Amino acid sequence: MGQTIRFGVSLDSELLEKFDALCEEKCYQTRSEAIRDLIRNTLVQKEWEDLNRVMMGTLTLVYDHHHSDLAQKMTEIQHSNLDIIVTSLHVHLDHHNCMEVLILRGPAQDLKAIAERLIATKGVKHGKLSLATTGQDLP
Amino acid sequence: MGQTIRFGVSLDSELLEKFDALCEEKCYQTRSEAIRDLIRNTLVQKEWEDLNRVMMGTLTLVYDHHHSDLAQKMTEIQHSNLDIIVTSLHVHLDHHNCMEVLILRGPAQDLKAIAERLIATKGVKHGKLSLATTGQDLP
Amino acid sequence: MGQTIRFGVSLDSELLEKFDALCEEKCYQTRSEAIRDLIRNTLVQKEWEDLNRVMMGTLTLVYDHHHSDLAQKMTEIQHSNLDIIVTSLHVHLDHHNCMEVLILRGPAQDLKAIAERLIATKGVKHGKLSLATTGQDLP
Amino acid sequence: MGQTIRFGVSLDSELLEKFDALCEEKCYQTRSEAIRDLIRNTLVQKEWEDLNRVMMGTLTLVYDHHHSDLAQKMTEIQHSNLDIIVTSLHVHLDHHNCMEVLILRGPAQDLKAIAERLIATKGVKHGKLSLATTGQDLP
Repeated sequence: MGQTIRFGVSLDSELLEKFDALCEEKCYQTRSEAIRDLIRNTLVQKEWEDLNRVMMGTLTLVYDHHHSDLAQKMTEIQHSNLDIIVTSLHVHLDHHNCMEVLILRGPAQDLKAIAERLIATKGVKHGKLSLATTGQDLP
Repeated sequence: MGQTIRFGVSLDSELLEKFDALCEEKCYQTRSEAIRDLIRNTLVQKEWEDLNRVMMGTLTLVYDHHHSDLAQKMTEIQHSNLDIIVTSLHVHLDHHNCMEVLILRGPAQDLKAIAERLIATKGVKHGKLSLATTGQDLP
Repeated sequence: MGQTIRFGVSLDSELLEKFDALCEEKCYQTRSEAIRDLIRNTLVQKEWEDLNRVMMGTLTLVYDHHHSDLAQKMTEIQHSNLDIIVTSLHVHLDHHNCMEVLILRGPAQDLKAIAERLIATKGVKHGKLSLATTGQDLP
Repeated sequence: MGQTIRFGVSLDSELLEKFDALCEEKCYQTRSEAIRDLIRNTLVQKEWEDLNRVMMGTLTLVYDHHHSDLAQKMTEIQHSNLDIIVTSLHVHLDHHNCMEVLILRGPAQDLKAIAERLIATKGVKHGKLSLATTGQDLP
């Protein structure tokens, strides 16, 4: 991290009022912190556009363990992508349903390809890949 | 519009550098203008959550005029929602395909309902509703 | 368009019941039409990923005409991109606010670049680009 | 789960060809499985619109542990929302950056409120809530 720099922003008073109300609602302690988050969000969105860039990914899968060959497919995929699946977390939802959350690390396009293969598995009811920054280039 | 107020924002120097590069790339003339846009975007997203709020909507439809009864359905819908469809624009894409852009004004939930009915029409290949603010509460 | 082909789909009866309820709510006349729309949506999403592909775009801009140099910027951009802006539509929202809807045609990345420049213009309160298919490769 | 029902879908041959290519690319074994996923996705999107409905949530946070009071804020929030945070997972990204993935269960609006509070915490560089179904009403 570099040093902290302070600069001025000019805003219409009504817009500022609405922004302050929003900051309070979202529990931001300062305007600066809220503006930093808006800026970082935009930068992360740009990171996603570069499919070769190394990203973190959180893949959430909900499936019926009685009707799914997910366990077997995950084993297969893990063996051919040992370096991409960092860890995984399992939650029992009810008698039928399970949730599996996989933490992935690798080029965005590889994360998308693995996510698609797992979501396409029989018995998987819902799957969603959420890409996140590694934080390295995001001060 | 109220008066213009100026306040200070503190930012890590590396984050500021990346933000400045982004502002230049997106052709913003000042940091203030870029920050105003980030704030307004967040406010507009909040507007959308209120389904009873009056919004503008742009509905884009691509359809094959040889195989669509869209014209007839639009006439029906317009007659029972005279107040919602503000205007429409037609573009001939090729021998088969047409594009119809409808400008809608009304409560968000009514705009969504009309959009769903039109998108569901036979022969419509693609449809997308884009909600926009009326600008009234957005200084 | 090719000939119509019919094939069988097997579905759990409870899932089918929920799907039928959804089709009715969204005013689809047949299950086939609803499934065709789901398939076409997925194909259009794939089209967007190819930034060099020619797409249609609907750019919605809401701005305060008292404080915007949008008109001037649009003239500039149109002169250097004569081939991209197909047509535009203007709606007066109230005493202050205007809405401008531009129909664009060109490679996805060019549409995005023009949209960014116009959204970044001073006085533009809200801007959103909605990409659409040309319909050509979407039977 | 109910019994399996089979019904016919009619599709233009060119559209079917493109759909089959997509199924192969996404590693679906049958058209039925791909269509089931499209239908379930639409149903899950509808679930999200009901803010009082109990949902699962995966909240991904990337933060600099040197500059964040996230640990303290999470403790506070957990103590007043013992029932919502099911479990959490921690990944060390590099010397500075950590990733925390929280599994949440509760009404969609409560999940959104907790996510907003944690994302607003100083030092959190990126945060994203991904809502998922509990699978209970999704055969």
